[in-house]
Formats: sequence, structure tokens, C-alpha cells
Amino acid sequence: MQIVILLYDGLTALDAIGPYEVLSCVPNATISFVAESNGPIRTDTNALALMAEATLTEVPQPDVLLIPGGNTGTIAAAQNQQILDWVRSAYATSRWTTSVCTGAMVLGAAGLLKGKRATTYWSAGPFLESNYGATYIAERYVQDGKIVTAAGVSAGIDMALFLASQLTDTETAQAIQLALEYDPQPPFASGAPHKTTQAIIEKAQSLLREGKRR
Amino acid sequence: MQIVILLYDGLTALDAIGPYEVLSCVPNATISFVAESNGPIRTDTNALALMAEATLTEVPQPDVLLIPGGNTGTIAAAQNQQILDWVRSAYATSRWTTSVCTGAMVLGAAGLLKGKRATTYWSAGPFLESNYGATYIAERYVQDGKIVTAAGVSAGIDMALFLASQLTDTETAQAIQLALEYDPQPPFASGAPHKTTQAIIEKAQSLLREGKRR
Repeated sequence: MQIVILLYDGLTALDAIGPYEVLSCVPNATISFVAESNGPIRTDTNALALMAEATLTEVPQPDVLLIPGGNTGTIAAAQNQQILDWVRSAYATSRWTTSVCTGAMVLGAAGLLKGKRATTYWSAGPFLESNYGATYIAERYVQDGKIVTAAGVSAGIDMALFLASQLTDTETAQAIQLALEYDPQPPFASGAPHKTTQAIIEKAQSLLREGKRR
Repeated sequence: MQIVILLYDGLTALDAIGPYEVLSCVPNATISFVAESNGPIRTDTNALALMAEATLTEVPQPDVLLIPGGNTGTIAAAQNQQILDWVRSAYATSRWTTSVCTGAMVLGAAGLLKGKRATTYWSAGPFLESNYGATYIAERYVQDGKIVTAAGVSAGIDMALFLASQLTDTETAQAIQLALEYDPQPPFASGAPHKTTQAIIEKAQSLLREGKRR
């Protein structure tokens, strides 16, 4: 089984690495990080690069593909015809086609979300609906046919555990959860807009706008 | 404020990338990935490399240092005198010295956990006590003075939110949690050994032993 994670300039690292860590425990699966070209791909903070070890043309028919999100880098990826052609083609023969966070915009730009239920980053739902004809569902991850979309950044871990259960069985997915000691206990409970205050929402938007992310 | 994350051959990527994603939202902080030498550092699955962009000698006095865990790679790191000397020296002037998962073994090997309360991967607690004189606490993260240790892999995200609150304030840490949409809802509840069955525990150990991780 071949699992492929797309890298592109400006991606958010955790969107890719959360699911990678889960899916790398799936028995008899190989994971590849792919991009238009081999080599280091810089993430949205500029502080980190992940290595792409295969090119898109080298992995035309993955069993599972995963598109991480980002900020301005994702806007560019959603306008990149080589990436969109690869996504459409890989989707056709894939078992699962998935996204994390604003990675859903790449699926949308490839025309794969029209009329589909999907999720994305909490602030990006209206855009997903107006631009790509999806129905935004504010859930941690959403399955519609063979497309599974995850909410923002960290939601990719939850989605990947669901995927692992589909690729193997419930017991194996539970064992993977234990292998990663994924027993989350955040010190605060402000991980979704409806669980926090308007002041925290504005502060989060300001952190993203004025921060180092691009 | 300078935050430094140690990379070494065979680390577990999520141990580093979970906290990185949280801490990269801290205003006025710079994050550096460091290793003995610049360049790509392979993780425990062999499927991924992260780029180290500075050497240990270039960042002798970080404000915050973070040591990720791994498997056989961590055993080697905990016997690497250059790494241990750097950890001891950086600890002396650091504001926070932290580890995720078996990264605690590197702190232990540097002599920093003797008589301290600490946590690590769920199966590694007895080793931490017998080899490094720590008192193992089965919590998500444990603070003792300026040392903060996190439990396995994904626990680094929870710890980093605590660190973010200490480096800034509660409201900013809550905004960072929202920025990462960290509202975890795993599809299963088997993330800690006391929450699951002996069969799942054995399956997790088998996945790690027979899997691609080294």
C-alpha cells in the first residue's frame, strides 16, 4: 500500500507530520513525501524544511494521498496546474483522497469537492462553499465517498486514526493511538471557535496575520 | 527569545513538530532546528528527513531547548558526548529545558533528572527511574523547576501549550490553541495504557517492534 503526502512551498508542517506519524504505523504501507521537485521544501514559518524524496510523476497512482494546508503557499498550490493535474489523476485511482486544514482548497481547485460535504480550517468554511461548491461541515473530519477532509492543522491526527482503522481494523488503529500515546489533554479548552471567546478568536487571527507565517 | 529543537538521526518527527507548530506562534520568538551538523536528518521511519539549519555550537545559549524522542536513535543520542555536553551547558542558562517522549533519556544521560519528577513514553518510566534517578510521573507533562518533560509523541503538543502560556500569557496560549484548531477528538479512546486492554497494549508493542521504526 502506497501512501503519499504532498509537500509544497509554504505548507504547515503539522498538517503533514501528524497524519504521517499515524499512518507510518500501518503495517505493509510505505509513505512517501512528494513534491514537484526533490529536495528541501520550506514550511510556512520559514524555520523548517521537510525533504521531498519523490516527484509527482514518480507516484502517479498512490492508494492514499494527503494534501496538507498552509497560508499563501496553499493559494499558490491551488493555482498550480501540475499539482492540480496530479491530484485529479491520483484521485481517480486512489482508495482515499484526503486533506488537512486549507489543503481542502487544493482538492476544491481540482474540482473534487463540488456537491460534496467537506471540512477545512475553522475560518475558511465560507470560502470552501463559495469557491468550490462544497457544503462545509464543522466537524473534526468529514468523509464523503473516498474523500476525507480534516479541520485545521491538528485535526489531521484524528482523521489519520480514522483512515488507519479503514486501512486496517479498529484494534490496529487503537494500537497505533497507544503507540503515539495520543491521549490528548490540552491545558486549555479553546481549540474551536464555539468553545472560546470573541477576544481569543481575534487574538488568534492577529497571531496568524502578524506572525511569522506566510 | 530563542527556541531550539534538537534533531538527531532516528528521532520521531511528531515529537519535534508538534511543539514546533505551537511555539512558532509565540510572538517575538525564533525557532531553530539544530543538530551536530547542518543538513537533512532522517527520522525513525526512514521515510522523512527534517533539515537542521544550525549546529549545536552556533546556539550555545537558547532560552528554550526541546529534545524529541525516538527509538534506537535516542539511545545513540544519549551516549553522544557532544550532544550531552551541549544539553548540560544549554540547560545551565536556559529558561526552560524540555523533552518529549524518550527525549527524557537524553536529559537523564546528561545528569539533569536525578532526584527530579519527570515523565516519558508510557513503557519507558521504569528505565527512567532505574537509570537516571528520576521519579516517573504518569502525567501528560511534568514540570520540575525549569525542566518540563512530556509523555509519548503527541504529548509534546499539550506540553508546548503549557510552555507557550509560561512564555506569554494564558490568553495568548489559548489563541495559539485555536490557531492550530487543537480541539482533539480522536475516534478511539486508547491513547494511554490504563485506558485500553492488554491485547491492544501488546499489539502496540508489536507494531513498534516489527514496524518500520528503528
